[in-house]
Amino acid sequence: MIEGEVLRRDARDVGRYDLECDVLVVGFGCAGACAAIEAARAGAKVLVVERSGGAGGTSINSGGFLYLGGGTALQKALGYEDSAENMFRYMMAACGPAPDEALIAPYCEGSVEHFDWIVAQGVPYRASYFPGNHEPFTTDDGLTYSGSEHVHPFNQIATPAPRGHAPQSIRDKGALLMNKLIASALGAGVKTAYQSRCDALVLERDGRVVGAVLSTLEGERTVRAKKGVVLTAGGFIYNEAMLARYAPALARCGSKVGTETDDGLGIRLGLAAGGEAIRMDAGDISMAIFPPNRLRSGIFVNRSGQRFLNEDVYFGRAGELVLLHQDGQAYLVVDDACFERPSMFPIELAGVGETIAELEAEVGLPKGMLEATVAYYNEHAARGEDPLFHKLPTWLTPLAKPPFAAIDLRADQPFFTAFTLGGLRIDANGRVLGASGESIPGLYAAGRTTSGVAKQGYSSGMSLGDGSFFGRRAGRHAAAQAGREAQ
Amino acid sequence: MIEGEVLRRDARDVGRYDLECDVLVVGFGCAGACAAIEAARAGAKVLVVERSGGAGGTSINSGGFLYLGGGTALQKALGYEDSAENMFRYMMAACGPAPDEALIAPYCEGSVEHFDWIVAQGVPYRASYFPGNHEPFTTDDGLTYSGSEHVHPFNQIATPAPRGHAPQSIRDKGALLMNKLIASALGAGVKTAYQSRCDALVLERDGRVVGAVLSTLEGERTVRAKKGVVLTAGGFIYNEAMLARYAPALARCGSKVGTETDDGLGIRLGLAAGGEAIRMDAGDISMAIFPPNRLRSGIFVNRSGQRFLNEDVYFGRAGELVLLHQDGQAYLVVDDACFERPSMFPIELAGVGETIAELEAEVGLPKGMLEATVAYYNEHAARGEDPLFHKLPTWLTPLAKPPFAAIDLRADQPFFTAFTLGGLRIDANGRVLGASGESIPGLYAAGRTTSGVAKQGYSSGMSLGDGSFFGRRAGRHAAAQAGREAQ
Repeated sequence: MIEGEVLRRDARDVGRYDLECDVLVVGFGCAGACAAIEAARAGAKVLVVERSGGAGGTSINSGGFLYLGGGTALQKALGYEDSAENMFRYMMAACGPAPDEALIAPYCEGSVEHFDWIVAQGVPYRASYFPGNHEPFTTDDGLTYSGSEHVHPFNQIATPAPRGHAPQSIRDKGALLMNKLIASALGAGVKTAYQSRCDALVLERDGRVVGAVLSTLEGERTVRAKKGVVLTAGGFIYNEAMLARYAPALARCGSKVGTETDDGLGIRLGLAAGGEAIRMDAGDISMAIFPPNRLRSGIFVNRSGQRFLNEDVYFGRAGELVLLHQDGQAYLVVDDACFERPSMFPIELAGVGETIAELEAEVGLPKGMLEATVAYYNEHAARGEDPLFHKLPTWLTPLAKPPFAAIDLRADQPFFTAFTLGGLRIDANGRVLGASGESIPGLYAAGRTTSGVAKQGYSSGMSLGDGSFFGRRAGRHAAAQAGREAQ
Repeated sequence: MIEGEVLRRDARDVGRYDLECDVLVVGFGCAGACAAIEAARAGAKVLVVERSGGAGGTSINSGGFLYLGGGTALQKALGYEDSAENMFRYMMAACGPAPDEALIAPYCEGSVEHFDWIVAQGVPYRASYFPGNHEPFTTDDGLTYSGSEHVHPFNQIATPAPRGHAPQSIRDKGALLMNKLIASALGAGVKTAYQSRCDALVLERDGRVVGAVLSTLEGERTVRAKKGVVLTAGGFIYNEAMLARYAPALARCGSKVGTETDDGLGIRLGLAAGGEAIRMDAGDISMAIFPPNRLRSGIFVNRSGQRFLNEDVYFGRAGELVLLHQDGQAYLVVDDACFERPSMFPIELAGVGETIAELEAEVGLPKGMLEATVAYYNEHAARGEDPLFHKLPTWLTPLAKPPFAAIDLRADQPFFTAFTLGGLRIDANGRVLGASGESIPGLYAAGRTTSGVAKQGYSSGMSLGDGSFFGRRAGRHAAAQAGREAQ
């Protein structure tokens, strides 16, 4: 953030424009690429401006997952039943509180077509299912559970179906996805300008967005955008001041997911043009201690030595509950039978003991509480039951083999990863909405510059998912405008 | 909210102004009254406009508490030691996460002088201490604990001192406070216009706020405000759409604290003028099942039958934790010795039993958990200890006298009361700040139109406290401006 930055400019103060296009896309990540492709295919002259030196944004370093369902070609090929309605039920239960029906409903309805479109851009998917919980980090399988669809309480609300669609690559899945989308955009005739930061939007007197002011290596350049501007410039996890003002809990997490350009500039540009930013406290908070999945046979306990969650949930749900409900401190208690070092991040042990009592004392938990918790858990696990949180029987084994250990699940550990989910409010066509519900003429947004389908309760693939989905819609809607000549 | 409302107007589109003043105050609650008094005393021509038919706002129906300390005259008269630094330590610990040092520091430093000023407006305080936890609802005592200063963990962080300053009246304390402030404002020469809603702010081309457009019984009226506009128009607890977009958890609460004009219009006016609204998810969430305080000898348990909090905390802290950390459902388990019906609201019993096992089954808690919880609690309570949450010994009595009961602490019950704490970002002079940290020339705000000293972790009296405190500062700062003539 630049103190005193001026994020909007009056069109009357802009003389001759240096550049002209129909649709200006700000940011060349996944949402921007999809907006650009669709706008260009609809006949618009498209310019994509990107602050950094190359295309890809945060998306290119991501896991490449798209959260899609409703009966996609890949789901069908692998024999998984799903429907738009079933997917809607899961998302309305998981993406709360106050899930955004206005975005979730079209997202579920359009999901099958959207997957076909992604495939048509050249992104390959292998028709194979990854049976581990959540993410095929070490295989090129195409489909997996990337949320908590198959575990309690969501398996009581909607029929479980895997919806994590992963490009066919053992590593760098995000790069594979993005390289195909970038190639598709360039192939559609999209023009690009790198090292070009959008510093202000240009507004006509009636509030219509008609262009932008860029900061480039050659100095300031003005762009006329006759049909519209699409903001796809990422979130704000790398802006400390904005985190403190809007989402202070996220600042506690050990790792940030994003690039340094996730500094909220896109959101601030939208605000300055009259847009509204909503649910700015929300974030994806993942506790990436899985894989290995065998750790799920351990139990999460809080500072009081109490369990608080079924351990088979998506690690994003676990991270969210530890950070937001347990004040950022919990432990994973394991025995020698289920312990294995997590594969993605280093961990610290808060304590080790030959008995639970010894472990409890070493961690500093209230006397007798962990013993009571483990006794209750073991008694029921021996019968394949979990009356407290209904963990799947697969992971229900009494903790009985010493030594016992407690993995320190403190929010500032590196495996606590966070990115922001709050941002500009959009409608289903990607139009940015103002505080009174009106759309800002000429202004669109998608991806993490917006508040999307996951207001909270993230599942992997929802961010690339809604960024690509509403990015396409924004690009098409902008391209269909009559366009306005300079006044 | 009016779909499509236009909240700002270009000064060039305003011909002749119908009215003129130096400082325009929008809303005649506690913050507005204090802004008006100070602006008028500094020599400014002040107009206060109020949507409803009379003065007082939500403040007039409130408990009338001001959260003040640092060694006020009343604290000293009653022998309580406090200092600005000690008060600052409590507020920085309680009003988190990410407490707002920029507002809390001057608030603590100016607190002694502010109390004297309130007294000078004619508000009477009786030099007597109310020893019950929290609020002298049935006495006219002047000072009490209105937060969690004296209980765990805050009694470990700062020296406990009571800071709830209550006007001397058995009932209608808020009316007493407001009637004195209103009289003081009118005595200072402040002009008023009722049934006059501010629908838009008037901005010069450079972004300066120079007036407002009012909707009155006689139709639209424009006001020129040469030195500034102060927005003191309340929060948004009565705006369902805004709650859904910003603070959906608050919408779950059974009661709203406010008036129907707490619909966020002041916040939206500020946003439209380029202001930034922050921490919009925050709220005061009180679980008003106390008094009677003897209920604090019961134990709070969650849906798993586990304790999660010391029961002697301020009921705002308890409500916040039940709503935000326990998904809006908990129980207060009592025995026949400590049960008594709450005095302020009706309650429902989720179950009754001759034994804890019977109660557990009737409430539907996981088998054996409540029994284990009560056994652990009783064992330590018999020794005057609470190793889990450190409740004060006063309330530590084993739950032993049947029958036992569980009071249903569900968020939609009427004793769950909520109001919003998010709003416009201001500096210590009440100037509204934009997204880039700059102040909006000519625009001020205070009270629940702003994000104030309590970003979360509310204690009683912080809202009237910061509204009156920063309201005064806003009024003084605005009055000190050179003023701008119409261009």
